[in-house]
Amino acid sequence: MRQGWIAVSLWFLVAVSVVGLATTRADEGMWLFNALPTGLLKERHGFEPSQEWADELRLASVRFNNGGSASFISPTGLVLTNHHVGADTLGKLSTAERDLFSEGFLARTPAEELKAPDLELNQLISIQDVTQEVKSAVADGMSPEDALDARRGRIAEIESREKEKTGLRCDVVALYGGNLYHLYRYRRFTDVRLVWAPERAIAFFGGDADNFEYPRYDLDACIFRVWEDGKPAELEHYLRVATQGTKAGELVFVSGNPGRTQRLLSVDALREIRDRQLPAQLDLIRRREVLLQQFSLEGPEAARRARNSLFGTQNGRKARLGALAALQSPGVLQSKVVDESQLTAALGRDPALLPLLSAWDAARANAKARSALQGTGLPISSRLFGIAEQIVQMAEEDTKPSGERLPEFADAGRESLLLSLYSQAPVYPDLETALLADSLGQMLERRGADDPLAARVLAGRSPADRAAELIAGTGLADVETRKKLVAGGQAAVAASADPLIRLAALVDPEMRRVRKLGDELAERDRQAADMMMQARFAVRGTSEYPDATFTLRLAFGTVAGYREQGKEVAPYTTIEAAFAHEESHRTADGPQQDFALPASWHAARERLDLATPMNFVCTADIIGGNSGSPVVNRAGELVGLIFDGNIQSLSASYVYADEQSRAVSVDVRAIIEALDKVYNATELLAELP
Amino acid sequence: MRQGWIAVSLWFLVAVSVVGLATTRADEGMWLFNALPTGLLKERHGFEPSQEWADELRLASVRFNNGGSASFISPTGLVLTNHHVGADTLGKLSTAERDLFSEGFLARTPAEELKAPDLELNQLISIQDVTQEVKSAVADGMSPEDALDARRGRIAEIESREKEKTGLRCDVVALYGGNLYHLYRYRRFTDVRLVWAPERAIAFFGGDADNFEYPRYDLDACIFRVWEDGKPAELEHYLRVATQGTKAGELVFVSGNPGRTQRLLSVDALREIRDRQLPAQLDLIRRREVLLQQFSLEGPEAARRARNSLFGTQNGRKARLGALAALQSPGVLQSKVVDESQLTAALGRDPALLPLLSAWDAARANAKARSALQGTGLPISSRLFGIAEQIVQMAEEDTKPSGERLPEFADAGRESLLLSLYSQAPVYPDLETALLADSLGQMLERRGADDPLAARVLAGRSPADRAAELIAGTGLADVETRKKLVAGGQAAVAASADPLIRLAALVDPEMRRVRKLGDELAERDRQAADMMMQARFAVRGTSEYPDATFTLRLAFGTVAGYREQGKEVAPYTTIEAAFAHEESHRTADGPQQDFALPASWHAARERLDLATPMNFVCTADIIGGNSGSPVVNRAGELVGLIFDGNIQSLSASYVYADEQSRAVSVDVRAIIEALDKVYNATELLAELP
Repeated sequence: MRQGWIAVSLWFLVAVSVVGLATTRADEGMWLFNALPTGLLKERHGFEPSQEWADELRLASVRFNNGGSASFISPTGLVLTNHHVGADTLGKLSTAERDLFSEGFLARTPAEELKAPDLELNQLISIQDVTQEVKSAVADGMSPEDALDARRGRIAEIESREKEKTGLRCDVVALYGGNLYHLYRYRRFTDVRLVWAPERAIAFFGGDADNFEYPRYDLDACIFRVWEDGKPAELEHYLRVATQGTKAGELVFVSGNPGRTQRLLSVDALREIRDRQLPAQLDLIRRREVLLQQFSLEGPEAARRARNSLFGTQNGRKARLGALAALQSPGVLQSKVVDESQLTAALGRDPALLPLLSAWDAARANAKARSALQGTGLPISSRLFGIAEQIVQMAEEDTKPSGERLPEFADAGRESLLLSLYSQAPVYPDLETALLADSLGQMLERRGADDPLAARVLAGRSPADRAAELIAGTGLADVETRKKLVAGGQAAVAASADPLIRLAALVDPEMRRVRKLGDELAERDRQAADMMMQARFAVRGTSEYPDATFTLRLAFGTVAGYREQGKEVAPYTTIEAAFAHEESHRTADGPQQDFALPASWHAARERLDLATPMNFVCTADIIGGNSGSPVVNRAGELVGLIFDGNIQSLSASYVYADEQSRAVSVDVRAIIEALDKVYNATELLAELP
Repeated sequence: MRQGWIAVSLWFLVAVSVVGLATTRADEGMWLFNALPTGLLKERHGFEPSQEWADELRLASVRFNNGGSASFISPTGLVLTNHHVGADTLGKLSTAERDLFSEGFLARTPAEELKAPDLELNQLISIQDVTQEVKSAVADGMSPEDALDARRGRIAEIESREKEKTGLRCDVVALYGGNLYHLYRYRRFTDVRLVWAPERAIAFFGGDADNFEYPRYDLDACIFRVWEDGKPAELEHYLRVATQGTKAGELVFVSGNPGRTQRLLSVDALREIRDRQLPAQLDLIRRREVLLQQFSLEGPEAARRARNSLFGTQNGRKARLGALAALQSPGVLQSKVVDESQLTAALGRDPALLPLLSAWDAARANAKARSALQGTGLPISSRLFGIAEQIVQMAEEDTKPSGERLPEFADAGRESLLLSLYSQAPVYPDLETALLADSLGQMLERRGADDPLAARVLAGRSPADRAAELIAGTGLADVETRKKLVAGGQAAVAASADPLIRLAALVDPEMRRVRKLGDELAERDRQAADMMMQARFAVRGTSEYPDATFTLRLAFGTVAGYREQGKEVAPYTTIEAAFAHEESHRTADGPQQDFALPASWHAARERLDLATPMNFVCTADIIGGNSGSPVVNRAGELVGLIFDGNIQSLSASYVYADEQSRAVSVDVRAIIEALDKVYNATELLAELP
């Protein structure tokens, strides 16, 4: 049945993509699988992907619904992704007694595999253009608010109908800022089990210091298995390992789910991001980072509990700092200014296109409004508060028809929502209290400590005391309690004395008010973006790939080093260099934090082929969300595993540049070598085709 | 000759202080040595200090001019202070090969002592009231700007005249927000040598996590020696060690230099601090903290170079977070509201005092103006840029008469200024570049990247590239270059091609403009504070000690534990508990960072009397700047060494509370035990009287 939905047409790909040469640079592009850059590939690299090649790669590609990419690597359901993509699950499966991060993990038999509490993996089965159906919901002259509601309703309708028809997860995705709408149908896997993870010491060797840097020496990999009906899933589509790896200069492909880019934004919007939005976000991120560090210092168990959040925070800080540096660099914005002025000049010359110019005025106003909207609202955050808020909102939303609800509460997404809401993943009261206390303090700073709503939230306590009281008093750590409240709907919520439910109910009107402002602004942005895309299509043709939307895309490039500060950076590192890197960070008290290789690697050193390539870089165009993406060769065989970009690649949110920007991968040869010599994973290796 | 200046009159003390009981709480107060709370001490603690007792304590007390306190502890010039007060010097004396922080240091003979590159120690010789002379410089009806200039001129005149007369360092200090002016005369010591420092691992055991916490287990102590004429200075006044230590409940005194309190601020000003000023400061501090952490991760040598700045930043972050938490707690501000409304109500009842009420309106306006002024200006910072700025400004200021210059360039302070400007302390280009790059980025964020002056500062480069170019190009790391520029005055500065000198000259007008705004605001604040103090004196008498001004004060209290979250916290910790604390932070890979005791302590464990008290807490009223203050008993003998306050004491900037607030000291018995059994410092111990 699934096969019927493979609607991607290679013919269609060719038709739209040959125009691409003029405006894309070098190996730029996060291409839609239903609009692959075949002309570009043929012209630049002499390669013509067949329909079958593209279908196989798409169906072997996996999305980790919590924010990453992966691939199937065996007919027996094995899934390869990054250790840092699996980290959330590793954390949830760890306890004070058994820390899977520090120790690593290997299941010798399927029975030993550990079931993830709330993972959902998606396999993209088909894509269908539904632009007309979505757009026809919006009548001319509708206000932004009404247009938003109408479009939301139509999208919920399509998603529900298609889910009903196919049993697949169905998401309508807005592309080009809402110029096109495509329906993505996914097979869902929710029984996902951990098979192998190396120690964090090698997976994240070099820690925050080396993150987004190159050269790099990390085995940022782990392996899960999808199960169905209580046994390992049987898969038709999976990647084979290219044991010979790659050579410098070789053409490679990346199939993954880049999360978000903003390459089509106007220059004015980028200026607002540069001068106001990113600096404010960075302040918040650094605040969270320092808080989590402080919490971690309370002891080893505290450090374990906070580790994942801390990693995410540091990663986010470094990514945004890089993006800000890119926007502050002369050149980056200048290239946008040139591009935009050429485009708007062309519009000015054509009376039929002239009205589209107003989109730039709207975009400027929207960007300023977005800056102003930052730092308003009630920044109350903790996992348990989030659960309370979801329960309170769902109770109200579920009284409405699916199409009129806030989109996350629509019928089509209910299974995925409940998988997360009813997760048995542990919740740590000490960490919850620390996060909630800080967010309450932040609320006071933002609104002023004399704000009436803030005063009601605090109920006469200090932020720290109030947070302690709320977390100690709530029963929401218990999943059965959540289920009962959801089942009881509005009446149960109204009757609940749970302090977090009461708090969520208290702040819900304000939360909704601020959200509405944001949603309306997003709608105005979408309208402006739509007009800008009309302008681009009119002036330049449909040569451009859409901004990233955390859906499957194909990128390509070559394995290539680069020059930095006058020196040549080689494309490959080796296992031997990892040992040398540890040495260079050795102090009298041992290696610096995060620069100690695990004991297992030291023990295996004599057995290892030290010349084995460890990591490599290529010019493919990636961004956050691509983590865990398979890198394949012309034959569609697995050669690497994307896990990072170098520091120069952090401009990628706004602009692609291939001089120094590089995607960083684990070399598949290092994975095989380590599984064999360090982890002695005989059974696992035997499963690989 | 020095003795002639001991002008403190015990008679005067008694006269002003007996009124103090009504409005001060418990053991509150940072008392002037020329206005000691003798009545309060007699009433509460049955203790009457003699004039001689007070003089001896004052003359044995030492100010570290770079921001700390200390005491003389031998006739041979030995000075006891905190390790963290000496840390700046330890850093400047360390190299990549010899890290005094990690290794510690002990000079077995005076010849082995290491000379600090830029330390100035001050011994307070006398205090004289010069209020009338200062105030008479300001005529009625002068604008704030003119009043500021007139007062600055008069103060510079007094300081120059008195320095000329006595050869002493002479500082006019504004008390009670400028209601009183006192002249402080100091003997300066500038040949200061390091004698002993323990390893940072025990001095700062528990690191940032335990900072401002209790129980605590730190040997935060080190010993310097003052030299004169190429040999150890001979001292008449010094403290003797009370080898018996203290007992719980015992009365103790703290003689030190609290840096800054704001206890006399209006409620409106505190609200601005709470809702706007502290949050903005914290954003900047966390930014610096994360930056320095990142820099440290580059390698062990980078970590060594950044360590002192990182400690200072973390310390500042924790102190401000505590202050903010205090202001956000119900109760703290409420006590201020009650106090202020009582006072203003009393003014309202007396037509003669009614006009003073306008001070509160002025204070509110000033506080809002101060919030608005935050985040303006050009935040360019690095040690070398600071040097460039000082040279550029000094060249211009020195063309004016001393009384008309910016105060730091007046004649009286020239020796201290040049000691710092010509310091041979190492400057690290990599750290300078990182700090400068970040501050240039910050300038872009603050002013917008399209700001014309910002564009001139960056000269077409990115912040990182521009910083690298400036630091690589400057010659100011060389002290001789600085001396030549200073000697050459304005002509030399104008002719210099040094890129940092050119940058400083470019931004000087804007720097001065923003500074002038701040100075004028400070002057308006001073005028309001002066009126508020008139109101307090009129309504309540002169019962209150002035806010801290980094000048010598006496605090007192008892050795006492406290209750926290329902549990009793004992006043003393022991050496044994330090070992237990290390154990509780042990992971599979060894103790967490900053929780490993040094090898020397493990080696000495069998020899140590593990029951020796390590740290203790008392109720004395202290704040930053008091670090290193001697704690003495009724006999004036040394019993401890202030090094911290607990987390509850962080309200101290705004309000004193003695229920849980505690000052934390190293017990003198731990210092003696460690010098004897861990460091085998026989010669040093023999010098102690």
